[in-house]
Amino acid sequence: MSLLDMLADAVGPRNVLRDANDIAPYAVDWRGAYRGQPLAVARPGSTAEVAEVVRRCGAMGLSIVPAGGRTGLAGGAVPAANGPPAVVLSLERLNRIRNVDARDFSLVAEAGCVVQTVQAAAAEAGRLFPIQWGAQGTAQIGGMLSTNAGGIRTLRWGNARELVLGLEVVLPDGRVLDDLRRVRKDNSGYAMRHLFIGGEGTLGVITAAALRMVPALKRVESAFVAVPSPDAALSLFSRVMGSGAELIGFELCARFCMEMAAKHGVGLRMPLPLEAPWYVMVEIAAAHESVPLREMLEDALGAAIESGEAVDAVIAESEAQRAMIWKIREDYPDCSRRDSPSVGTDTSVPVSAVPDFVNTAERELKARWPEGRMAAIGHAGDGNIHLSLHAPADWPGDRAAWVERAGEMEPLVNAIAVSLGGSFSAEHGIGQSKRHAMATHKDPIALELMRTLKAALDPVGRMNPGKVLP
Amino acid sequence: MSLLDMLADAVGPRNVLRDANDIAPYAVDWRGAYRGQPLAVARPGSTAEVAEVVRRCGAMGLSIVPAGGRTGLAGGAVPAANGPPAVVLSLERLNRIRNVDARDFSLVAEAGCVVQTVQAAAAEAGRLFPIQWGAQGTAQIGGMLSTNAGGIRTLRWGNARELVLGLEVVLPDGRVLDDLRRVRKDNSGYAMRHLFIGGEGTLGVITAAALRMVPALKRVESAFVAVPSPDAALSLFSRVMGSGAELIGFELCARFCMEMAAKHGVGLRMPLPLEAPWYVMVEIAAAHESVPLREMLEDALGAAIESGEAVDAVIAESEAQRAMIWKIREDYPDCSRRDSPSVGTDTSVPVSAVPDFVNTAERELKARWPEGRMAAIGHAGDGNIHLSLHAPADWPGDRAAWVERAGEMEPLVNAIAVSLGGSFSAEHGIGQSKRHAMATHKDPIALELMRTLKAALDPVGRMNPGKVLP
Repeated sequence: MSLLDMLADAVGPRNVLRDANDIAPYAVDWRGAYRGQPLAVARPGSTAEVAEVVRRCGAMGLSIVPAGGRTGLAGGAVPAANGPPAVVLSLERLNRIRNVDARDFSLVAEAGCVVQTVQAAAAEAGRLFPIQWGAQGTAQIGGMLSTNAGGIRTLRWGNARELVLGLEVVLPDGRVLDDLRRVRKDNSGYAMRHLFIGGEGTLGVITAAALRMVPALKRVESAFVAVPSPDAALSLFSRVMGSGAELIGFELCARFCMEMAAKHGVGLRMPLPLEAPWYVMVEIAAAHESVPLREMLEDALGAAIESGEAVDAVIAESEAQRAMIWKIREDYPDCSRRDSPSVGTDTSVPVSAVPDFVNTAERELKARWPEGRMAAIGHAGDGNIHLSLHAPADWPGDRAAWVERAGEMEPLVNAIAVSLGGSFSAEHGIGQSKRHAMATHKDPIALELMRTLKAALDPVGRMNPGKVLP
Repeated sequence: MSLLDMLADAVGPRNVLRDANDIAPYAVDWRGAYRGQPLAVARPGSTAEVAEVVRRCGAMGLSIVPAGGRTGLAGGAVPAANGPPAVVLSLERLNRIRNVDARDFSLVAEAGCVVQTVQAAAAEAGRLFPIQWGAQGTAQIGGMLSTNAGGIRTLRWGNARELVLGLEVVLPDGRVLDDLRRVRKDNSGYAMRHLFIGGEGTLGVITAAALRMVPALKRVESAFVAVPSPDAALSLFSRVMGSGAELIGFELCARFCMEMAAKHGVGLRMPLPLEAPWYVMVEIAAAHESVPLREMLEDALGAAIESGEAVDAVIAESEAQRAMIWKIREDYPDCSRRDSPSVGTDTSVPVSAVPDFVNTAERELKARWPEGRMAAIGHAGDGNIHLSLHAPADWPGDRAAWVERAGEMEPLVNAIAVSLGGSFSAEHGIGQSKRHAMATHKDPIALELMRTLKAALDPVGRMNPGKVLP
């Protein structure tokens, strides 16, 4: 039987993509940085069909590249350019929400559910599914879990990993691991699910997950705050967090980032004139309506201004103003791309090391690329700052030319983060883009353990080859 | 070199226990249910010494049984009675708190730190380390993590697993995995730490952990509530949780349990006359002092009484009254032991299935052992109800005789929990006591995966043999 006949037999002819035009979107990543041609794209409609595709591809000696909403930034969901012959296994048709239980604060969603759809299902049940990030309208649950996605709410509710109660996984040999329980406590043996969460499809294919919901938020207050330095920002963080207010967002943004947003954003209005070197977006929330949230925020910001941690602050006076603050943050990546070529990183450090990290990086980048412009923006409350180096405004070349000139900023910044006890890969995953950093920075014993686990679970190396492991 | 010389060389002669009297406490578990004789007890004082003991025992073909505060209820920290020759590796001297960072909301503690000591260190920094359970004055961090301990606060802050930022582990071959970072976000490869957390020492020895702290609680309110049924209790749970009050404890207790506490407890005073069939202990908290906590609880309980979910309720009027409610809960296990022989379980079900679980079990136990008395108490907000069957008050025999008569209640109750999508092992771990339940109830594919991982990480089977895997 030919490959296409085999796949058609497994998932139905209409769910096998073979034409170049149909396959094209699956052969390039979100940012256009990684390209790899699959032999075909299979779109199974059930867990059993996923298992069938995995089993049959295995029998034909073909590799599997699982794909979801394909919004990843690390090239994890496209075949490696020089990899072995591979079939893309798209989970997009596995998009049922199998169960929502408000009393239980849990829901069960298939891997192909769009994150926003799951948020909406939770809201309809009077609950909150708290994961939130820019790509949520396209990204899918399977990808969210396979990359252990972060976002702007991890400060309060953790990464994707922390929201999982149970998992259903198709293993590399096509068997189905059914661990889809909705229990809060289960210590019956090794917590294998955590290998698949963040495993980027290299150990198996997540097909469904039982997820936690939390009480819906009744009140939210946001502010846009001008601060004199990253150190002041961190003192402000400590003040708000220490006050006991329920902090659900704390973003640190260099003025340069806000200037790019102001320049290129469509319909963005800055809440303050851009006169300070750094800005913070802060959001606190309460699930109970009697919590005096506004006063809490006013008190904290008033004390911060008095102590010099902040120089100015605007509290959103309406839902529209609040939405505007977060739209600036969400639209920033696009604005930054439109502004000028850049090279970026995905680092994290202990929260208390953020000022040291930013200051050291700024000094070293300035020394080596005096013409470059450093952009620093990120989830400071998680210690997860995304540093980029932009080409000068009058850069004559294209992105490739800037990457050739400044590409070395990435290992340099990674090394600074690691030297401060941090990570070179905070929330985007390894995929293809950070394999070299794994080789450089990952502890050799940890790396060897990873290889041992990979060999044990996927001895033939069929699952998403060329990803994660260096 | 003899075993004792070898160990003395590794950890110093004073830290090798060889006399029968010295070894005796390490040869029996907390409840006296499991006994196993180690060849010796080694008490290393550093991670390097732990590694040395593991390496040298390996070279001599000896097994390792890691031990901490030895308060476990599953027999995980004593050698298996018919197991291979083993050395108990006690982490008790590895008891430094290496770092406390208030600004970072993190601390680094060695495995031998007593849980209460870590709680105190967090409190001193103005933070909260939120794990809490009866044995906290004796239990150690290493055991807490190796069993992924739960307790009465998991409802709000999760199990022990959720509080870990990084881990240091001595692997079965004596190498040290140094993953002790304090970062909140790290997606640099497989989350191996989660195999060691809850691994009960069968995959390696946890020697230190970076742990999360949370904002200190400024206000706490507790109530003791009489409810007509488990179903009413769950409606009350949903009401309080759904109201957005920060629920940090929700314990469901059958009247029989409260009667045993009243009868055998030293200095316990029941907040209400024991006239209702079920009681709930509820606690809400706030980290910010301006949260109107008392009103929140009064409102919720008032509405609950009005709707019939509760028949009576007492809100603690003082810290002493609050402490009394929780002392009843903490002293309960002792009171229950003093009352009469019993056979118990450690099950969990989805929270919404708690009423069905309790009612079904009550019916089936009554049918089979009409003379038995069912005790049901547990963390209902986690779906984790501990069911026991007590001998009748006039039982003439000893515990062994009752176990012989009613021992089959455990598989029966486990089967009910599993049929409702629950677990036969919620928070105590598998150890020796639940290996038979693993064989019966664990999904065969999951079990095979566990064996694959065990063989990959500990190919010779040297780490804590006779535990966890059936």
